[in-house]
Amino acid sequence: MKPEGRMKAILSSAVLALSCLSALAQQPEQKPQLPVEKWTGKTVMLIGAHADDDQLSHGTLALLQAHGNKVYVVTLTTGNVGTQDPALSRMQLAEIRRKEELAALSELGIPGDHYINLGYDDGLLEFEDRKAVVENLVRWIRKLRPDVLFAWDPGKNYQRWHKSDHRAAAYLAADAARAAMWRLLFEGQITQEGLKEYMIPEYLFYNDYDHQDENTVVDISDFVEQKVNAGAKYVSQFGPGWLKYKPELTEAELKEMKELTRKRVRMKDGKAFEGFRYYRGLPDALGK
Amino acid sequence: MKPEGRMKAILSSAVLALSCLSALAQQPEQKPQLPVEKWTGKTVMLIGAHADDDQLSHGTLALLQAHGNKVYVVTLTTGNVGTQDPALSRMQLAEIRRKEELAALSELGIPGDHYINLGYDDGLLEFEDRKAVVENLVRWIRKLRPDVLFAWDPGKNYQRWHKSDHRAAAYLAADAARAAMWRLLFEGQITQEGLKEYMIPEYLFYNDYDHQDENTVVDISDFVEQKVNAGAKYVSQFGPGWLKYKPELTEAELKEMKELTRKRVRMKDGKAFEGFRYYRGLPDALGK
Amino acid sequence: MKPEGRMKAILSSAVLALSCLSALAQQPEQKPQLPVEKWTGKTVMLIGAHADDDQLSHGTLALLQAHGNKVYVVTLTTGNVGTQDPALSRMQLAEIRRKEELAALSELGIPGDHYINLGYDDGLLEFEDRKAVVENLVRWIRKLRPDVLFAWDPGKNYQRWHKSDHRAAAYLAADAARAAMWRLLFEGQITQEGLKEYMIPEYLFYNDYDHQDENTVVDISDFVEQKVNAGAKYVSQFGPGWLKYKPELTEAELKEMKELTRKRVRMKDGKAFEGFRYYRGLPDALGK
Amino acid sequence: MKPEGRMKAILSSAVLALSCLSALAQQPEQKPQLPVEKWTGKTVMLIGAHADDDQLSHGTLALLQAHGNKVYVVTLTTGNVGTQDPALSRMQLAEIRRKEELAALSELGIPGDHYINLGYDDGLLEFEDRKAVVENLVRWIRKLRPDVLFAWDPGKNYQRWHKSDHRAAAYLAADAARAAMWRLLFEGQITQEGLKEYMIPEYLFYNDYDHQDENTVVDISDFVEQKVNAGAKYVSQFGPGWLKYKPELTEAELKEMKELTRKRVRMKDGKAFEGFRYYRGLPDALGK
Amino acid sequence: MKPEGRMKAILSSAVLALSCLSALAQQPEQKPQLPVEKWTGKTVMLIGAHADDDQLSHGTLALLQAHGNKVYVVTLTTGNVGTQDPALSRMQLAEIRRKEELAALSELGIPGDHYINLGYDDGLLEFEDRKAVVENLVRWIRKLRPDVLFAWDPGKNYQRWHKSDHRAAAYLAADAARAAMWRLLFEGQITQEGLKEYMIPEYLFYNDYDHQDENTVVDISDFVEQKVNAGAKYVSQFGPGWLKYKPELTEAELKEMKELTRKRVRMKDGKAFEGFRYYRGLPDALGK
Amino acid sequence: MKPEGRMKAILSSAVLALSCLSALAQQPEQKPQLPVEKWTGKTVMLIGAHADDDQLSHGTLALLQAHGNKVYVVTLTTGNVGTQDPALSRMQLAEIRRKEELAALSELGIPGDHYINLGYDDGLLEFEDRKAVVENLVRWIRKLRPDVLFAWDPGKNYQRWHKSDHRAAAYLAADAARAAMWRLLFEGQITQEGLKEYMIPEYLFYNDYDHQDENTVVDISDFVEQKVNAGAKYVSQFGPGWLKYKPELTEAELKEMKELTRKRVRMKDGKAFEGFRYYRGLPDALGK
Repeated sequence: MKPEGRMKAILSSAVLALSCLSALAQQPEQKPQLPVEKWTGKTVMLIGAHADDDQLSHGTLALLQAHGNKVYVVTLTTGNVGTQDPALSRMQLAEIRRKEELAALSELGIPGDHYINLGYDDGLLEFEDRKAVVENLVRWIRKLRPDVLFAWDPGKNYQRWHKSDHRAAAYLAADAARAAMWRLLFEGQITQEGLKEYMIPEYLFYNDYDHQDENTVVDISDFVEQKVNAGAKYVSQFGPGWLKYKPELTEAELKEMKELTRKRVRMKDGKAFEGFRYYRGLPDALGK
Repeated sequence: MKPEGRMKAILSSAVLALSCLSALAQQPEQKPQLPVEKWTGKTVMLIGAHADDDQLSHGTLALLQAHGNKVYVVTLTTGNVGTQDPALSRMQLAEIRRKEELAALSELGIPGDHYINLGYDDGLLEFEDRKAVVENLVRWIRKLRPDVLFAWDPGKNYQRWHKSDHRAAAYLAADAARAAMWRLLFEGQITQEGLKEYMIPEYLFYNDYDHQDENTVVDISDFVEQKVNAGAKYVSQFGPGWLKYKPELTEAELKEMKELTRKRVRMKDGKAFEGFRYYRGLPDALGK
Repeated sequence: MKPEGRMKAILSSAVLALSCLSALAQQPEQKPQLPVEKWTGKTVMLIGAHADDDQLSHGTLALLQAHGNKVYVVTLTTGNVGTQDPALSRMQLAEIRRKEELAALSELGIPGDHYINLGYDDGLLEFEDRKAVVENLVRWIRKLRPDVLFAWDPGKNYQRWHKSDHRAAAYLAADAARAAMWRLLFEGQITQEGLKEYMIPEYLFYNDYDHQDENTVVDISDFVEQKVNAGAKYVSQFGPGWLKYKPELTEAELKEMKELTRKRVRMKDGKAFEGFRYYRGLPDALGK
Repeated sequence: MKPEGRMKAILSSAVLALSCLSALAQQPEQKPQLPVEKWTGKTVMLIGAHADDDQLSHGTLALLQAHGNKVYVVTLTTGNVGTQDPALSRMQLAEIRRKEELAALSELGIPGDHYINLGYDDGLLEFEDRKAVVENLVRWIRKLRPDVLFAWDPGKNYQRWHKSDHRAAAYLAADAARAAMWRLLFEGQITQEGLKEYMIPEYLFYNDYDHQDENTVVDISDFVEQKVNAGAKYVSQFGPGWLKYKPELTEAELKEMKELTRKRVRMKDGKAFEGFRYYRGLPDALGK
Repeated sequence: MKPEGRMKAILSSAVLALSCLSALAQQPEQKPQLPVEKWTGKTVMLIGAHADDDQLSHGTLALLQAHGNKVYVVTLTTGNVGTQDPALSRMQLAEIRRKEELAALSELGIPGDHYINLGYDDGLLEFEDRKAVVENLVRWIRKLRPDVLFAWDPGKNYQRWHKSDHRAAAYLAADAARAAMWRLLFEGQITQEGLKEYMIPEYLFYNDYDHQDENTVVDISDFVEQKVNAGAKYVSQFGPGWLKYKPELTEAELKEMKELTRKRVRMKDGKAFEGFRYYRGLPDALGK
Repeated sequence: MKPEGRMKAILSSAVLALSCLSALAQQPEQKPQLPVEKWTGKTVMLIGAHADDDQLSHGTLALLQAHGNKVYVVTLTTGNVGTQDPALSRMQLAEIRRKEELAALSELGIPGDHYINLGYDDGLLEFEDRKAVVENLVRWIRKLRPDVLFAWDPGKNYQRWHKSDHRAAAYLAADAARAAMWRLLFEGQITQEGLKEYMIPEYLFYNDYDHQDENTVVDISDFVEQKVNAGAKYVSQFGPGWLKYKPELTEAELKEMKELTRKRVRMKDGKAFEGFRYYRGLPDALGK
């Protein structure tokens, strides 16, 4: 639980921001006040639709975990649909995906009980009741009270296209971040569960393509091996297990999977990095 | 967690029941094998819509708690609407109703952390997404794994009329009892939360009028005082606090409230009792 | 607008009733304190699904109108579907039904601006958002502030079967009657539209079959002609206009239609009557 | 396709019925004009929620099929949830249930392409969009144009209690029967698919308990063996396959399954029968 | 009510536009034929989500009101959530927001009965039934029959990102503008309420950031004081009342609030202005 | 039905693509491997919201049909709303639109039974249950198994603005393309209807404005007359039949309609063309 005082301070500056919205619009690109590489003592929450949506941020998550921050990964669906192996059932796939995700997080140093899966069906998230999904996310935001939220980028100025599931994960995360800060929304959580309203002050939005809105890069040079090892755990997602699942890879297959992940690591000036759109301020304006 | 063996036994006899449905239809009225007054070591779960829906069963709950059973009360709404006091807001009322309910349960010997409120808005429960409400109830059934469920009677043969909220509480409790037993329903709870499917074997359905479907009475003679004291806690529900709330009653008001509750205690042959429709078997047939 | 004082009185006795629910259950059948035939100065509101649902009550409505009461008829759908005439479109049918209803009400002495049609599509009412329909009905209850509500009987003890549309009209009218009395429900109507919460104190439930729950008959002997004349206006509903619509009937056809309505007038001891289930008290218990 | 003339005649008598509703209410119990045992040349449609819901009518369906009627079975869900065998997945179960149903129908002489499964998930039917389900049923009614509809009894006067899925199957079948007759409902089917509105004239409602509303019995003495053989096909539903599925039964198991079905055959005066609530007339009044 | 003839003319040119869609795509930026500063005799309707969404257009609204146009402001929600003052309830906040809005409009010369609030809950608009919200907006469009609609910009070519509530207000206003013009949509309003279909010919879309799609500026130099005075009324929205509400400001606080609003006035070439994306034509193409 | 082998090959390369998503993001604009003008033997499916949405692609469809491809047009709504002729009803308009569409397709050489209309109401598509609409589209994708899908462009990187109906048609087509490929989604179609999962490998997205995302043009020089003749069939859509419908045009009117269509044909370097955004790969990434 954050000290009351700090929350007040954030809100005071927020209301200031609120009264300068037009001004803000012209402001230069936002940057974290302290580079992400120097963050410590923060609570970090990532919202994704599928086990492996966090993969784009694995280097940064490993870095944050190593630097004394607490990292939580909240995944909306069980990933129980996306396979081409005709022998797998929904429940088997859900169990495989969970095991893979826990193994991947373990490579990053993130403990298993920091993985929260909300249990929705893969591929059908957009058909769930949106109020109920937002309420669930609000509950976790109010519980974890993160200093930083990682989420699929809902878009800057315009609504970013995402495939179904990612679309819900992007927009509903933004909606939940906004709703969480109001005492008069989802107030059952407050009167019955001992939770309190909470405003997330900082955001890192990730995206798997079209990086033009990125304004922040994180140097993950020291965490590439962890990222590669974590990525190699998603055997059923994009490795040989996609067409025909098997829990154990041959050494050659494992090597190939690692190579695939390694090739996807973005490089600039000889440094491995991950890129994000950083935002700080009222959740109301996170798409601006 | 119940031993696997017992569950199997229940299901074996259930499948037997299943294959004798027509026979069952002609069977004599159901009765508990052991009178409720002798139950011990059971886990008991009550589902209601409002703080005070459990009032009809307070004598029985006090008895069960006293006899070494564990009693849980799950309430769907916060009761944040039903007042005639123009000075109260939704949140104030929700807090009052929670405080009153905890005080009432305390009179019955039921600990505060056995009260679970799902936080829905009073008067609007029927407009919530039914799948999401059922899923929430299924989660609690699978967590608590009750031997007995108390719920508003959904009706025998025909759907009982209940006012909105009670209607949802009655039907959705029945639906949740049924859904909870299938491993292939709400399977996200199973793969992600470590829960297991569970079939509730026994039911006591309560109703606040038209007692013709009751087949079981519980002698609450020794628990009338507890019931009366508990009832007197609902100051904002039907006492002087309904028109104008105040937390503290005068001695005269308190006495009057107790008298009201006492007068409503049902008596037969000089004995105080509460009546229920008892059902045992597959949840599929609980309305038959 | 009712004087505040009277509302308070009603509520005080209501809370008394509230605290005697069990007692009430055993109470003798309810009857109006003053026979319906002697009512005067009351505001009367009827909720139906289709133009012509009020037909079952036409004698009583004519009587009430004649005796100095104000009668309003609120119809949920435009009736734009129920024809066997292949030449009619939805809009034409809606216009015909409206014209017929106004003509029928005119026969009863009810002015045209007391007819309120909420404009939903016939046959599809149950697929509309229930919260939005209830909110609309609550608005009209809070506007008209009726002393008496006529509605399809939602059922006593059990939910009465009605065909789709009637089902919605029955249950949603009951739900709206209940919601209307709470200041904390649909409060946008109160803060933005100058409306105030309102509790309907008396109810007359009508039904077109199975009269066993009726507890009140109204002697309509003096209003049979009006009822017959009004009924003869529904040419497109059950007259020759059902298979092939024409606005003008021959004299023979008109006579036949009147005969049909006349034959359906219920008679007892040589007196024409209409029967209802009367209820007085908190809307919470109107199905008990 | 029925000749236009006949449809007109039905509707003309229907409109007559329509104009005599009150009268009808007092009419004696309805009976088929010709005993079911003598029906021939009819198109028969049965709507159920699960493969095996038709089991209650197997004797009658075998009889009708044998007597030159065409029998179609429309099942709403795939039955992909109801197993206690932890080794089965949803898809495996759906395939087993389909195979069992086809085998059962084959015993009754009903060809495989008369089995239509709408593919909804078992246990979740009530959460599907009701308009979409009704529209699907209306399509099949307008395609098959049955003379008789078999369905779960939605209830006489009151809404019958059914477990979830059966509840939807009962009410939505009734709603679809009503909607199908109006040219101005689901008119996309008419303008785009070459279908025409259609009114089902006769109904046989089945129920698995509480037979007090039955008004018609069918003597199935000559079809008991077929019913027993068909019932023995539901190995995964209530036979030994419920706890642990296997496609092939031992001879002893098969014998036991047959015995179970045989014991459930209802007998009266030494004759095997199945009972129904028969209704003839406008679908509007099928619950009266 | 517009003369029929004019409507026809608009539609004739609309159909011309319709048949030149590709051509339109290449057309130069749209501009009002007459500068906004010269408009007179027009009916103007603004749709926003919250009291204060009109603030971005206050200068222009004051100007239009002064120049003999009729201005109506339609707000979807009561604004009953957005406060950081823990002492305020939803209803109190709704009343404050209404009072503030009426005071602000009064500064602009807009009469109180030109303010229409649809009463939805703040922060939850996106969870309301979209059809019902659109239908409500269509009703007001058909009633007011505006020459110009002010609305949140739904986006040019792409869907503009807006926070929840604004998103609904932007898209649903566009959808309502489109639906309002078709006689065969929401035809219950036409057959029952005496309304007629109506096509809004001109649009001014506002936005609070990212002004690159603006194609029209309005010189509000003469209306800055009114805008500043109006803005200073929103004490609970961004003034000192956000953290702790009080109805009366000190002189210093009032001055500070005015300064905040004044600083946010956009200036170009020494002139105060407000910017918009102007659109004229079929609502079908308003996002192009 | 595609040979299994080919499907496997597609998926193998798909999984490769899957594992190179970041790489893909930087890849040059996509182009068809073989120019569209040389395609033959392909199954082509177009999804639109209204009869005439295919008009933008008429030249290309005529070309493909002429070159030995099979073209199917799937339209979601009946187009039963968009008229200014006060004499037309919904059903009449639906029938006119169907006749016009069949006539237009006939001009392109596309047989009438390749036109599939899903029967939704015009202008209301966005209010239909999205899951049910997607399920319907998935069914047709799995039945037709197209090599190429034509659809409204859902947007590249950002969600393209489309008016209501087109918005649903764009996004739901993309969602359906994605869902169709997973065996574990809408599996009722697979277990009950004999369909198999299917992945559409190639896409041509059309748009009626803002052509900046187009990466592919098709030379339709040889098919301009067919396009013009087909376009002239939409008399009720944008010809003289919009304001007042008549089935037969005068020669002058017909000529004018053809001229209108002809003028809208896009020309470049003296050649008539239609432009598209081409995409090949996993449907997951079709908006990137």
